[in-house]
Amino acid sequence: MTKKIQSALISVFYKDGLDALVRLLHEQGVTIYSTGGTQQFIEKLEIPCVPVESVTSYPSILGGRVKTLHPKVFGGILGRRANEQDIAEMKQFEIPELDLVIVDLYPFEETVANTSDEKSIIEKIDVGGPSMIRGAAKNHQDVVVIASKQDYSFLENILREQQGTTTLEQRRHFAAKAFEVCAHYDVAISQYFTPGFDNYFLSSVPKPKIMRYGENPHQQGVFYGELNDIFNQLNGKELSYNNLVDVDAAVQLIQEFSTDNNEQMPYTFAIIKHTNVCGVSQRESVKSAWDSALAGDPESAFGGVLVCNGIIDVATAHAINEIFFEVLIAPGYDETALEILRAKKNRILLQQKKPVGVKQQFRSLLNGVLMQQIDEGNYTKWEEAGGRESTPEEKADLEFANLICKHLKSNAIALVKNRQLIGKGCGQTSRIDALRQSIEKSKQFNFDLNGAVLASDAFFPFSDCVQMGHEAGITAFIQPGGSIRDKDSIEYCQKNNLAMVMTGMRHFKH
Amino acid sequence: MTKKIQSALISVFYKDGLDALVRLLHEQGVTIYSTGGTQQFIEKLEIPCVPVESVTSYPSILGGRVKTLHPKVFGGILGRRANEQDIAEMKQFEIPELDLVIVDLYPFEETVANTSDEKSIIEKIDVGGPSMIRGAAKNHQDVVVIASKQDYSFLENILREQQGTTTLEQRRHFAAKAFEVCAHYDVAISQYFTPGFDNYFLSSVPKPKIMRYGENPHQQGVFYGELNDIFNQLNGKELSYNNLVDVDAAVQLIQEFSTDNNEQMPYTFAIIKHTNVCGVSQRESVKSAWDSALAGDPESAFGGVLVCNGIIDVATAHAINEIFFEVLIAPGYDETALEILRAKKNRILLQQKKPVGVKQQFRSLLNGVLMQQIDEGNYTKWEEAGGRESTPEEKADLEFANLICKHLKSNAIALVKNRQLIGKGCGQTSRIDALRQSIEKSKQFNFDLNGAVLASDAFFPFSDCVQMGHEAGITAFIQPGGSIRDKDSIEYCQKNNLAMVMTGMRHFKH
Repeated sequence: MTKKIQSALISVFYKDGLDALVRLLHEQGVTIYSTGGTQQFIEKLEIPCVPVESVTSYPSILGGRVKTLHPKVFGGILGRRANEQDIAEMKQFEIPELDLVIVDLYPFEETVANTSDEKSIIEKIDVGGPSMIRGAAKNHQDVVVIASKQDYSFLENILREQQGTTTLEQRRHFAAKAFEVCAHYDVAISQYFTPGFDNYFLSSVPKPKIMRYGENPHQQGVFYGELNDIFNQLNGKELSYNNLVDVDAAVQLIQEFSTDNNEQMPYTFAIIKHTNVCGVSQRESVKSAWDSALAGDPESAFGGVLVCNGIIDVATAHAINEIFFEVLIAPGYDETALEILRAKKNRILLQQKKPVGVKQQFRSLLNGVLMQQIDEGNYTKWEEAGGRESTPEEKADLEFANLICKHLKSNAIALVKNRQLIGKGCGQTSRIDALRQSIEKSKQFNFDLNGAVLASDAFFPFSDCVQMGHEAGITAFIQPGGSIRDKDSIEYCQKNNLAMVMTGMRHFKH
Repeated sequence: MTKKIQSALISVFYKDGLDALVRLLHEQGVTIYSTGGTQQFIEKLEIPCVPVESVTSYPSILGGRVKTLHPKVFGGILGRRANEQDIAEMKQFEIPELDLVIVDLYPFEETVANTSDEKSIIEKIDVGGPSMIRGAAKNHQDVVVIASKQDYSFLENILREQQGTTTLEQRRHFAAKAFEVCAHYDVAISQYFTPGFDNYFLSSVPKPKIMRYGENPHQQGVFYGELNDIFNQLNGKELSYNNLVDVDAAVQLIQEFSTDNNEQMPYTFAIIKHTNVCGVSQRESVKSAWDSALAGDPESAFGGVLVCNGIIDVATAHAINEIFFEVLIAPGYDETALEILRAKKNRILLQQKKPVGVKQQFRSLLNGVLMQQIDEGNYTKWEEAGGRESTPEEKADLEFANLICKHLKSNAIALVKNRQLIGKGCGQTSRIDALRQSIEKSKQFNFDLNGAVLASDAFFPFSDCVQMGHEAGITAFIQPGGSIRDKDSIEYCQKNNLAMVMTGMRHFKH
């Protein structure tokens, strides 16, 4: 049902862009009601407007906390124009019809981001604003609601094209947006007061980015969030759904490796495929980290997501340039290196500006949502339980292998030698399968397992794993422990002079 | 700061449980203000209360749409007791202090669940309620807000123990809950108006269930949702975080297999480990489906999540009873079968009452949320592109293998013979690795691959997979197609008289 706008209530915090819309409303003969700063803004445009106080005969009180919360305002917003009794009551109580409500909300999130002063934050909890917006959205049968400056130009276009009228469909569209704005606002307030969640899982994330498709071409996919806060994209096509899944895994992995942690081997390079790392190495230079990561499984690297904790230099760029990859993530790129890598225009080159700081992760599951803290930390203890202590060289490899294993899908086994992943088993339905697979993998590329170390993401249920590892040449093991049969594996190591570290910390990942 | 409650505004939709609280407030000398039905309820208790209309000197108008939206009510809620000017204005305008606000919300979600009449639904968008609740929560420095009947008894306890006073910490606690209630309400409204999401990812799920821990013991985990809507739990301990992840995978898989779809082999049994299926079979009876599922990989089955689309009978219960498993899911259990399975008290036995009907799935990722449609459907075409058509027997196996492969983590390969999974590779960083792994697996348990079929979740980038499969005895392949080198695999099949079906539908799963 098409309706002409004859009156508008305008009360906004952000005034940029409002002038054009106000001028148009004035041109189209709309009576404008307003409050405080918005009223002054409109009057400066030399456009007449009626102060809301003159309608309510009530001043703004309590330091502005109560301005518009009055039956004449809400009657004007909520009155049903097709309801005879409503119309009669509006006449009786001298309630003006308000056909358009332009109201935005106090900047709550911005204030939380900029101060920890609770008083200032609380003052930014808007009470009148959401009430008017929600009232107008409820009554979209008769009323147009604009809850954000982003919709000014869309409304202007409609009003120009339709001579100051709107259709019911358009009013419903604006109402739907208005409810989204209010819901987002209250989720933000709720998360301020209950940061760990409590009675509800509540999430609201703006800025949707429609993807070409989801995990597969027949599925629609959307990412909500602002990737530009984390990355500068320096080259390439748009990130796909599956790219994002792998980029997330890559970033989670590389965040474990600070260049400060290891003076001799500060640089880590990793290759991710289908969320699992198929090659990774820690070296004295970026170039050699890349070479050793790739050497770990050159077959799987094809089409992978690459991630490094160091600046990509020219030598590395030349080397990477030789293979086909989807995404490269690094904290920076030498200018010439960037030029070399930009040779192929589809390649996605990301500069990571800052770490991803989230502390919780969630996923939809069955008819609800499963949420957990992220998997932080690596050990609760370092207990040498084998036939001997691990050597310094083994110890460095065990630490490295344990970190890698944490980022492989369960069941997972990682075989490492000289800070290079030389075999891995992941996503397996039994631990022994993961081990078999990792040994196969290392043999496929002719790695010598003698003196290598093995990490397991969970305990060994039997001694068969250490035995199989030992027979392949492995000399040191790392695992959380916690099986009722830990003793079997420990005894095997003790008998065979193998090192075995118990960390006390399981790292399942699904 | 401890404050005494001297006045209360009470206006609720749900009145059960209110009487005890109202009596206590009256005993403690609290002046009660109320409206409409709540006022009648309180008066029936022979407790005096002041109608809000006598404060505002304004009637309820517009069919109840405007009742409390008045400066005297909101001034009483929002006035800062420590602010001299606020106090002066409250005196001047005869605004009563309201120290306690008990207000709940119209039942919006319940109405949406019970009717599709938009008018009734819209009338359940509460405007006054959230305004009062949000105002009181904002002013928790001075005001107690109760936004749900679930908090009546907690408040009663406080008021009894503290002689009618509350602490600031308690008021902040109630405010935090109130904001959660309002946020949840607006998310529900928003999802009604924008079901597919639009400008925001918005989610609010009630009923948290704190888990013993998350994916690992050092991570906290919570499930939000109502599992009782889907399952009756008939035995066993509480579902863990990892149980839920596997139950979700199990249910998604079994929902593909209706007992109506296949007259000769209506029953499907599957064994899930770490979200992947390690054994699955389709048979003429539940018992033989179980036997063949288990036989596929008896090693991995240990500690698995079992799922079946048929009623668990006594013979099956006896057979299952012999192995250690975590969870069993079925549409029903014969009485004696249930008795047998209940022998171990930790075993989780679930009766699935209805399918999980969600159409979208989401997960947190990087600094945002990734959402997609679920992976529905199996083929967009059935194109026989090989050296010959698949035989009816192969065709049945190809369909089965394709379904299984859809539910394995990528890269995935499923080997099937006579509706039994006899080898699988999953979660692999290269397709050829997945194939190697699946062949290894089938050999480990002495399956004869001659005449078996192979499904791949994505296209073959080269002809090496079909060649390796052929050399192992496989005679028919199913894959989506879509590689620029599809021709290589097709030509290999044509030369070697192998069947090859192209489905046009990729099934990546991560």
